[in-house]
Amino acid sequence: MRTLVASLFLLSVTLAAQTIESPGRKLSLTFALTADGTPTYALSFGKRAVILPSTLGMELKNAPAFRSGFTVVKAETSTTDRSWEPVLGEVKSVRDRYRELRVTLRESGERARTMTVTFRLYDEGLGFRYELPQQPHLGYFTVSDERTQFALTGDHAAFWIPGDFDTNEYEYKRSALSAVDATGGMSATEIATRTVIGKNYVQTPLMMKSADGLYINVFEAALVNYPAMCVAVDQQRFVLTSALAPDAVGNKAYLQTPAKTPWRTVLVSDKATDLLASKMILNLNEPSKLTDVSWIRPQKMLGVWWELHVGKTTWNYADTNNVQLTTTDWKALKPNGRHGATTARTKYYIDFAAKHGFDGVLVEGWNVGWEDWFGQWKEEVFDFVTPYPDYDVEFLSSYAAEKGVKLVMHHETSASVTNYERRLDSAFRFMKHYGYDAVKTGYVGRIIPRGEFHDGQWMVNHYVRVAEKAAQYRIMVDAHEPVRPTGLHRTYPNWLACEAARGNEFNAWSNGNAPEHETILSFTRLLGGPMDYTPGIFQITMDHYKPGSKEQVHTTLAKQLALYVTMYSPLHMAADLPENYERFPDAFQFIKDVAMDWDDSRYIEAEPGDYVTAARKAKGRTDEWFIGAMTDENARTSTEPLTFLDAKTKYVATLYADAENAHWQKNPMAYTVTKHLVTAKSVLKLKLAPGGGAAVSIRPATKEDERSLKMYK
Amino acid sequence: MRTLVASLFLLSVTLAAQTIESPGRKLSLTFALTADGTPTYALSFGKRAVILPSTLGMELKNAPAFRSGFTVVKAETSTTDRSWEPVLGEVKSVRDRYRELRVTLRESGERARTMTVTFRLYDEGLGFRYELPQQPHLGYFTVSDERTQFALTGDHAAFWIPGDFDTNEYEYKRSALSAVDATGGMSATEIATRTVIGKNYVQTPLMMKSADGLYINVFEAALVNYPAMCVAVDQQRFVLTSALAPDAVGNKAYLQTPAKTPWRTVLVSDKATDLLASKMILNLNEPSKLTDVSWIRPQKMLGVWWELHVGKTTWNYADTNNVQLTTTDWKALKPNGRHGATTARTKYYIDFAAKHGFDGVLVEGWNVGWEDWFGQWKEEVFDFVTPYPDYDVEFLSSYAAEKGVKLVMHHETSASVTNYERRLDSAFRFMKHYGYDAVKTGYVGRIIPRGEFHDGQWMVNHYVRVAEKAAQYRIMVDAHEPVRPTGLHRTYPNWLACEAARGNEFNAWSNGNAPEHETILSFTRLLGGPMDYTPGIFQITMDHYKPGSKEQVHTTLAKQLALYVTMYSPLHMAADLPENYERFPDAFQFIKDVAMDWDDSRYIEAEPGDYVTAARKAKGRTDEWFIGAMTDENARTSTEPLTFLDAKTKYVATLYADAENAHWQKNPMAYTVTKHLVTAKSVLKLKLAPGGGAAVSIRPATKEDERSLKMYK
Repeated sequence: MRTLVASLFLLSVTLAAQTIESPGRKLSLTFALTADGTPTYALSFGKRAVILPSTLGMELKNAPAFRSGFTVVKAETSTTDRSWEPVLGEVKSVRDRYRELRVTLRESGERARTMTVTFRLYDEGLGFRYELPQQPHLGYFTVSDERTQFALTGDHAAFWIPGDFDTNEYEYKRSALSAVDATGGMSATEIATRTVIGKNYVQTPLMMKSADGLYINVFEAALVNYPAMCVAVDQQRFVLTSALAPDAVGNKAYLQTPAKTPWRTVLVSDKATDLLASKMILNLNEPSKLTDVSWIRPQKMLGVWWELHVGKTTWNYADTNNVQLTTTDWKALKPNGRHGATTARTKYYIDFAAKHGFDGVLVEGWNVGWEDWFGQWKEEVFDFVTPYPDYDVEFLSSYAAEKGVKLVMHHETSASVTNYERRLDSAFRFMKHYGYDAVKTGYVGRIIPRGEFHDGQWMVNHYVRVAEKAAQYRIMVDAHEPVRPTGLHRTYPNWLACEAARGNEFNAWSNGNAPEHETILSFTRLLGGPMDYTPGIFQITMDHYKPGSKEQVHTTLAKQLALYVTMYSPLHMAADLPENYERFPDAFQFIKDVAMDWDDSRYIEAEPGDYVTAARKAKGRTDEWFIGAMTDENARTSTEPLTFLDAKTKYVATLYADAENAHWQKNPMAYTVTKHLVTAKSVLKLKLAPGGGAAVSIRPATKEDERSLKMYK
Repeated sequence: MRTLVASLFLLSVTLAAQTIESPGRKLSLTFALTADGTPTYALSFGKRAVILPSTLGMELKNAPAFRSGFTVVKAETSTTDRSWEPVLGEVKSVRDRYRELRVTLRESGERARTMTVTFRLYDEGLGFRYELPQQPHLGYFTVSDERTQFALTGDHAAFWIPGDFDTNEYEYKRSALSAVDATGGMSATEIATRTVIGKNYVQTPLMMKSADGLYINVFEAALVNYPAMCVAVDQQRFVLTSALAPDAVGNKAYLQTPAKTPWRTVLVSDKATDLLASKMILNLNEPSKLTDVSWIRPQKMLGVWWELHVGKTTWNYADTNNVQLTTTDWKALKPNGRHGATTARTKYYIDFAAKHGFDGVLVEGWNVGWEDWFGQWKEEVFDFVTPYPDYDVEFLSSYAAEKGVKLVMHHETSASVTNYERRLDSAFRFMKHYGYDAVKTGYVGRIIPRGEFHDGQWMVNHYVRVAEKAAQYRIMVDAHEPVRPTGLHRTYPNWLACEAARGNEFNAWSNGNAPEHETILSFTRLLGGPMDYTPGIFQITMDHYKPGSKEQVHTTLAKQLALYVTMYSPLHMAADLPENYERFPDAFQFIKDVAMDWDDSRYIEAEPGDYVTAARKAKGRTDEWFIGAMTDENARTSTEPLTFLDAKTKYVATLYADAENAHWQKNPMAYTVTKHLVTAKSVLKLKLAPGGGAAVSIRPATKEDERSLKMYK
């Protein structure tokens, strides 16, 4: 890591307005106080305004607000240019280059308090946060609301989901800001637990595009010890105002000086790909808190999972709906005969995983309590250590070890988090005893402690506590239904991935995800961190399992392959059933080959809601690249110049593409696999079907390849 | 244990009214349905009505109430007469003799539900509870309110404290039911956390006396998985209605069939001593869940404790008010020089404890976090494993072991219970590592999970969880500021004692406890279980520590000794400082001698708010008896015929009495110690000063005693 602090100026205290430019002079940020001492900021992209002067501040409980009456005590600027290496990531080295402005504000009077606003200006965006230093008249305080505004320049096109304190699993809508109506979220019954805030509230990351072609994204980074931020949309003036998830008694955050809020962020560029390539969110997070990270590895896994979602098997062992952890005699229950997590079925997955070189096998429904786990707001719901009678954990853990495969633990909490916290140590000890290295956690349902929300301060702290304790046990974490990530995988690199958005599973049993869904995810959810989206579904239509069903995955098979590259994650499932992979061994080869950790990543083309194409260079392999291209409901030809390849090398490119007549709805499983020689001068033209995609693997050609294959054209 | 089920009748389903009599025919209970199918009950003492026909029922959330529309499906009666031996207790064997009526009620219609009301009628009182069996149309349900009524016969005199969901530490008031006004509780600022329900709400146990001389007590037993019960007083009709502590979202209890509520109880007799001697509350609790109880022992202990309350030393190590568990460098803090829990001071207590044969030394303030532990609603407040820099736990635990004394752990939680639960295992492991066998827990402050109350279902379950987990570690528990006990020390015999009422500590720093206080405790709080009241204060007046202070203990010194006998507990502190005990070695001898566990107990005389005298026979010793007598602000002569002594034995009685001119306020520390020979024919006449008391120890006389001492007269 190299650090360069170029300059540190102490500006005159009489200067109430400060302007800084980003290191490459793309963005400029102005801080100013209004006449009544209210702090404001404004952001421009070149000469184009992005954020008009917008007020900053917060309300406190039983104490005066931090909103006005300030003078500027100090304004310090500095420049930083450094780089760091992620444990797992999209690139080998991340450059962290920004100009910083720290404005220290003070109230007047005998009990005057001090607040610092720190701005970090990158070439692709702005981060700022409130810092409350330790001081005589501010120790403990309770935030009753935050009043951060983002005054936009117009009625931008927006990609949004309803503001909600409990879930991010909505379908994305696209509309002008003035047309946002989040009340539709109230009828999204396919989502287990919803707490819609109100008509004009939307979640961050909020992706927008201005009439003059700027891509703008409002979000946050390093969400720790604070509730998640939604925004209220002023639909006349186009001003966004922060809206924080409350706790059980309506407060937002309990803080103690020295305190700092998460970073509020605005990404902006006239090129959509700049936003996808940005590492600003990551850079605004703290460096890794773990010193030994040798045990953290990418996880490509299979799982007793999709078969549960398509209804082939069940999580629960019996069909009763009234069991109790401590008194039910599980061996005496009458099995329903359709339980998924049996010893035999898990052994089958282990064998398949071993044969095809997967790291792990996730098994859901292995532990007692699934008979009535949902919807009862039941505290003592799971114990995380007692297998069902038909799941021989002792045998399976030995068998998996013998086969060189890791079992992946599943801890569904049913959102009974007090129960999970008090059992966490014993649950992790159980894992280590049986050789598990990774856990998928789940938070489906209404939170216990009752009255708390998934996205409130208490739960935000919980997810971090789990990551921290897991690290103590050398356990990797994949959190489902948590608050959406904000780059904390930099700080806790064992926290590999989250769900925290509408995953592929919705395609199995609901109206599903629109063909444009994944192209929006890239510009929203994925900005915060890797997603366990569970791609790789080959059996696209659900009538395969449920005759007459109209449910289906809303992509082509080839697009399912593309997702492994377009959606960066060091943890990905090959989510379909082994039986289905055996039907399509040539397509399955891509999943077997694709890397999960990268030395380099290029976003070649992207438009939110329309298409994304990415190329990535595998880490730890010799000159292997993978390309993913995906489109929405419109067919498209994706053009990829392979200029990133070594100019002197010949490569083999294997193209996994939609067949000529493929179509996400009418003919989703038609694909072709072809091999070609390519060089850095080659330009791939990938034809994407409506709702389709393409995946490409590239490796240096052997002599045999050069003899047998033809040059791509 | 012998069990005798004398009869089991299945009565006709057409009989809607059922009457049973108690085994000794003292009480009779009538169950009846009203015309609209509302269940009611009534209770009589001989021919005198105690509870007029009163309705039973509960309201459910999002489901029809259990209030009316019932028919009687079944009414079963039975008689039980058995006995059992408590692990620690007032008597060697407890007789459990009652007549039971189980009335099974059913609704009509397609989704009819079933509820059973079980009544157990003892000669000294009634217990009844609701039972919801497992059934097709009732699985999970949420109690939004309970509608149990106790229709009294008149405007009884009552001893009450304000109905409150967070504390029981109020002074008792005595007034007619019609004159109850609980709003005074709102200004009881000496109590840290108060949540007064309203003007006409009082807590149970509620002690009353009727105009015709009946002593009536309304309470509950076996409070598990349900909130504590206060009662609303109808001040015109004298009907009490159950009022349950809510959770964070206003619900009362989350239950799952088969479910049962705690027992609702009415104790009644024309003799006040019958109520004190009653074991009905204990009998209504489940037998011990612990099989190995060999490690459970009475605890007589000293503690670095009273010196903290009188302001001689402090819990906190430094005088800052802003520390953080994970980031504060405790060694770098500037000590305030008055920290109590130092290595040297603790060693002094250990030496004193060893010299005088005490079991343990409690040390409060040993662990980091006390600088800002109170009033901040701070979650990460204590870690329970990090000693202050001046407390050498390693040395002290070895030193205590060498001296044959046990250190007693202190876990103040600051009511941050989520924090405590997630650290409980490590805290208990720390204790066992350092040889601690007992823990005093504390719950001062507003509960976290925020929105919960000390007396709600969630916290009720918490206290039980701590007792259960402690038992797994072979740890004994003394809970301060918990919900008031309801006999669960039978089920969890390692849960030795609770505070859960206004303890002696209020005498150190507030308006204190009126001289009648302890005589009311016997008829209220102590019915539920042992109290860690911390008697034994010899330095009665606080000006000793704080010149000019008017604060004082509101008893004579001799009454402090009496409390060890009148207030049964297997855990008692000798709460004063060793320095003070050294000033009064003759009085201190009683504390050294008095037993904590008993083969027999006799309540010789008692009147709530006026006086109590008890005699107890020590367990595990040869024929030793102890007597305690206490009075309120009025002087009194207590007469004790020693008929319980062996008729053929001569004994030595040591009388610790108020001096002639003693007075709780004017001359509290004047006492006499005299020795006499006594026999079963002796009748002690103990003169109790205003606010005074007397203690007597009795043991068989030696030859030398017979030569040197005179017969009492």
